[in-house]
Amino acid sequence: MSLIVVGTMAFDAIETPFGKTDQIIGGSATYVAYSASNFVKPIQQVSIVGYDFPGGEMADLQARGVQLDGVEIVKEKKSFFWSGRYHMDMNTRDTLITDLNVLADFNPQIPDAYQGAEFLMLGNLMPRLQKSVIEQLAQRPRLIVLDTMNFWMETALDDLKEVLTMVDVLMVNDGEARELSHEFSLVKAAKKILAMGPKFLIIKKGEHGALLFHGEQVFFAPALPLEDVFDPTGAGDTFAGGVIGHIARTKDISFENMKTAIIVGSAMASFCVEKFGPERLKEITKEDIDKRLAQFQELVSFDIELV
Amino acid sequence: MSLIVVGTMAFDAIETPFGKTDQIIGGSATYVAYSASNFVKPIQQVSIVGYDFPGGEMADLQARGVQLDGVEIVKEKKSFFWSGRYHMDMNTRDTLITDLNVLADFNPQIPDAYQGAEFLMLGNLMPRLQKSVIEQLAQRPRLIVLDTMNFWMETALDDLKEVLTMVDVLMVNDGEARELSHEFSLVKAAKKILAMGPKFLIIKKGEHGALLFHGEQVFFAPALPLEDVFDPTGAGDTFAGGVIGHIARTKDISFENMKTAIIVGSAMASFCVEKFGPERLKEITKEDIDKRLAQFQELVSFDIELV
Repeated sequence: MSLIVVGTMAFDAIETPFGKTDQIIGGSATYVAYSASNFVKPIQQVSIVGYDFPGGEMADLQARGVQLDGVEIVKEKKSFFWSGRYHMDMNTRDTLITDLNVLADFNPQIPDAYQGAEFLMLGNLMPRLQKSVIEQLAQRPRLIVLDTMNFWMETALDDLKEVLTMVDVLMVNDGEARELSHEFSLVKAAKKILAMGPKFLIIKKGEHGALLFHGEQVFFAPALPLEDVFDPTGAGDTFAGGVIGHIARTKDISFENMKTAIIVGSAMASFCVEKFGPERLKEITKEDIDKRLAQFQELVSFDIELV
Repeated sequence: MSLIVVGTMAFDAIETPFGKTDQIIGGSATYVAYSASNFVKPIQQVSIVGYDFPGGEMADLQARGVQLDGVEIVKEKKSFFWSGRYHMDMNTRDTLITDLNVLADFNPQIPDAYQGAEFLMLGNLMPRLQKSVIEQLAQRPRLIVLDTMNFWMETALDDLKEVLTMVDVLMVNDGEARELSHEFSLVKAAKKILAMGPKFLIIKKGEHGALLFHGEQVFFAPALPLEDVFDPTGAGDTFAGGVIGHIARTKDISFENMKTAIIVGSAMASFCVEKFGPERLKEITKEDIDKRLAQFQELVSFDIELV
């Protein structure tokens, strides 16, 4: 039940109304791996880092069952670095610094040992590279999940539309769904996007939860109301890791099981925001996750009583 | 199982990105009555109108079991009139006109025939008047629900705080909860507001659903994702009518039943926004409501599978 995860492994520096970090570990593939490794092993990581990415972090990931054969280490360059500042609502942020560094040269190569993977999580990257990964796989995975962002809709729309025809699940936030579809109503947006290729569409709404669309069906997963949101960085990737981790563990790609996967993703994301960076994700246990899943169940369960 | 509803009966003129109305029927008590009358009879209405409020509308309400003994008709004045324009997101609006007319003289009087009511819904009004209604009741209702708005937090905070000590359920939107508590986190806001008196707090988040807080417990009701939101006017009052209507019908004021009530309120609100004014609320049948409640059940139900 192996899972390939493609994305960035990077450094972030984050400012929120509640605190500030120096350079800490970040990157989409990092968060996905920390999250998904609670559910499935091995995770076959594909990424690129510079000489400065800590060996200790690599060792932590390996100890969690993350294979690093597909992580290219560039000796003469630095790792990708992003710095941002969150506003009070924690839903909006300003990018302060984007140093691509090694990411400018990223041309993901799938190691032979990764061939035959059943599940593929394509983190947010240039759509052309996402397509290249799919094309390198001798056998199509049972489920391909793709994350993307507004930047690619504005600079590489044709490539994005092409890769959308090749994947099963698209994950975007509400603003991106509106931008991609030119529809304000998320229900209308979902119809248009599903017509572009993916069988499932997940629209992430941050503190307002997430919607899952599939044909005429729709499911809503709430976000857990939290006393404090400390740092939302990586919450979307952590959500993705929970979703694909649950699917890879259960090997069931039905709509019913996808619903549970969205709840698992939401539960994982609720941990992520409790501390800076992936710190909280490194601490949590199976018991913590089970307890939180039960909280989600309680949060939305009610007895229907017809009039 | 009688229910007293106090609030405005009025005219609105509405502009949205999708259309525009001349003067149509509006008012908080109107929407509450149209919504709650699907669940409970009689509804004992307390309001004030001018000479221009249509007799046909009064007859429609009476036919639904709404008693109008407590509705004062002022022969020489016009009814309250509000006009507003919604922005594209339908969550924000500009007020264009507020003509208080009869509302400037509103001093609600509870008719003798209304004494002994078990449930009381206090629509958004000057807190002093809400308090006066409670004080006029010889026997305290089993459940008192209060709606209010930011305007009273800014102009009559002491009166509002006093009436908060006298009610069981407070209903506000997210912005108002933040303003009242001076907390950005809704979980922290809820703790502070529950300490002000109400045993239950409902925070309405429009298209993002509603939260119910009670002691340490929390419940979340989603909004139904709709293809088109035509006119959000009255959605909050329609929600309130569904909540109090369900409670009055079942006479069960437990947290468990309050959860179901919030779902019923959300279902009723989802009808309200489908047409201008209370038009859609006049059309729907018991079957429509049951079908929509089942949609809410489907929207959030999932199988929890622990890791």
